[in-house]
Amino acid sequence: MTTLGLAQANAIIDAAFARAGELGLKPLGVAVLDAGGHLIAYQRQDGASFLRLQVASGKAYGALGMGAGSRWLQGVAIDRPHFAAALSVASGGKVVPVAGGALVRTREGGILGAVGISGDTADNDEACAIAGIEAAGFVGDGG
Amino acid sequence: MTTLGLAQANAIIDAAFARAGELGLKPLGVAVLDAGGHLIAYQRQDGASFLRLQVASGKAYGALGMGAGSRWLQGVAIDRPHFAAALSVASGGKVVPVAGGALVRTREGGILGAVGISGDTADNDEACAIAGIEAAGFVGDGG
Amino acid sequence: MTTLGLAQANAIIDAAFARAGELGLKPLGVAVLDAGGHLIAYQRQDGASFLRLQVASGKAYGALGMGAGSRWLQGVAIDRPHFAAALSVASGGKVVPVAGGALVRTREGGILGAVGISGDTADNDEACAIAGIEAAGFVGDGG
Amino acid sequence: MTTLGLAQANAIIDAAFARAGELGLKPLGVAVLDAGGHLIAYQRQDGASFLRLQVASGKAYGALGMGAGSRWLQGVAIDRPHFAAALSVASGGKVVPVAGGALVRTREGGILGAVGISGDTADNDEACAIAGIEAAGFVGDGG
Repeated sequence: MTTLGLAQANAIIDAAFARAGELGLKPLGVAVLDAGGHLIAYQRQDGASFLRLQVASGKAYGALGMGAGSRWLQGVAIDRPHFAAALSVASGGKVVPVAGGALVRTREGGILGAVGISGDTADNDEACAIAGIEAAGFVGDGG
Repeated sequence: MTTLGLAQANAIIDAAFARAGELGLKPLGVAVLDAGGHLIAYQRQDGASFLRLQVASGKAYGALGMGAGSRWLQGVAIDRPHFAAALSVASGGKVVPVAGGALVRTREGGILGAVGISGDTADNDEACAIAGIEAAGFVGDGG
Repeated sequence: MTTLGLAQANAIIDAAFARAGELGLKPLGVAVLDAGGHLIAYQRQDGASFLRLQVASGKAYGALGMGAGSRWLQGVAIDRPHFAAALSVASGGKVVPVAGGALVRTREGGILGAVGISGDTADNDEACAIAGIEAAGFVGDGG
Repeated sequence: MTTLGLAQANAIIDAAFARAGELGLKPLGVAVLDAGGHLIAYQRQDGASFLRLQVASGKAYGALGMGAGSRWLQGVAIDRPHFAAALSVASGGKVVPVAGGALVRTREGGILGAVGISGDTADNDEACAIAGIEAAGFVGDGG
């Protein structure tokens, strides 16, 4: 599978929600972005608060923008907060440097897009992102 | 049905795409917003360009913000372009005064959210929004 | 009365709503700004949509910023739309050039603040703004 | 009481000011937002400075956007300053991660809106927010 279209994005979201259900997580927002950082699909579970969109998209956008899962950006933010702050402003607020944004990679390593999740802990958000990506036949890269 | 949650939002999107398929329309982006103007679900069909999100959401957001389907705002924009321009800037670009954004109303007239569609003509976009809303058991109000 | 404080602002809003009730208007948002353009008080009636804040405040802000009731700015917008558009952007979206924003003046003509109303027609909005201002012992200047 | 309308919002503000008077606090700005983060009512006491609106609203907006009272966001800001900074920018400056923003909950835990207060210490601001919410028959959740 080397294309990330709407069918694949919906499959990723379904599988991410399924994993969240197994883990008993809080309600989530899940965003799937194409390689250009633009939203293909978003779903927010009932009870999830409204800034989940900005956080989930911001994790995925930052991952794509820097070419690494957002856990890498989280490390940057801890080690060099001035850099993360500058990226946030430079991107017009579109980067959120917190784990939970995973690149959607082909088996060969190419980047097709990214998935960002927000609603539970960053670790759990990331686990669901990767579960969703893998279920759809891609390789998930959390950073 | 008096709640607009994720299940209803997904049903609206599915029905809107089904109608678009029957009509042979171009690829669409469909956004479903809650009553506060926040995204519940978004899906962009393969081949639809990336600003469809901003246009579709902007139609729905303007409808909710002014309490009338976006066809009403389209009329304002033609009659009083200065007002529409000011609303666009005042809302931080979140209002797009073009038909294709329909309020999701209960049978009693209450506003539960809005659906915005972009990708084909404004009239066709609106027709699909209303078809989706009606299929999910609500009343669509295009303005 | 030469001070526009919270007590006066609340009195203005109460009287504006009373007049709207007599006239049978749609639900309104009423904003009272001090001479520096900052909100003293705002009340949004049940059923009024959420962008009423931006429109009501924008009428009052434009009135203060240009030193004339927003009906004057509405004339500018019709005669010189480029000027109104530039003001909208220059103010960061804080100016809405539509009637319904009235200066709160002393008997001597001094400007203490402004009242902006949105929800019904611009003419009715303005009538309620002036009714509220007059009821509180000031002179209303719609432009 | 399961509706947060203008009458309830005004009751909350009155009770918050009453509590502030008993405690001898500095002049306050009090913002009441609906569940979508939009202002229902705002009052700024004489002598309170003008950015109280942005701070009070920002506390309430952040609480709603993340689904927890703003004391929780204050903890995030101390533990993970990069996340709080990114949220501030991602929301267009609408999130202020400081205690004093309390969710307005029903007895069953549903979220109807939020109250944000600014003017005294964050702890005192929060105490008045909760006092106002409780006086109006709701449950206040400071985070």
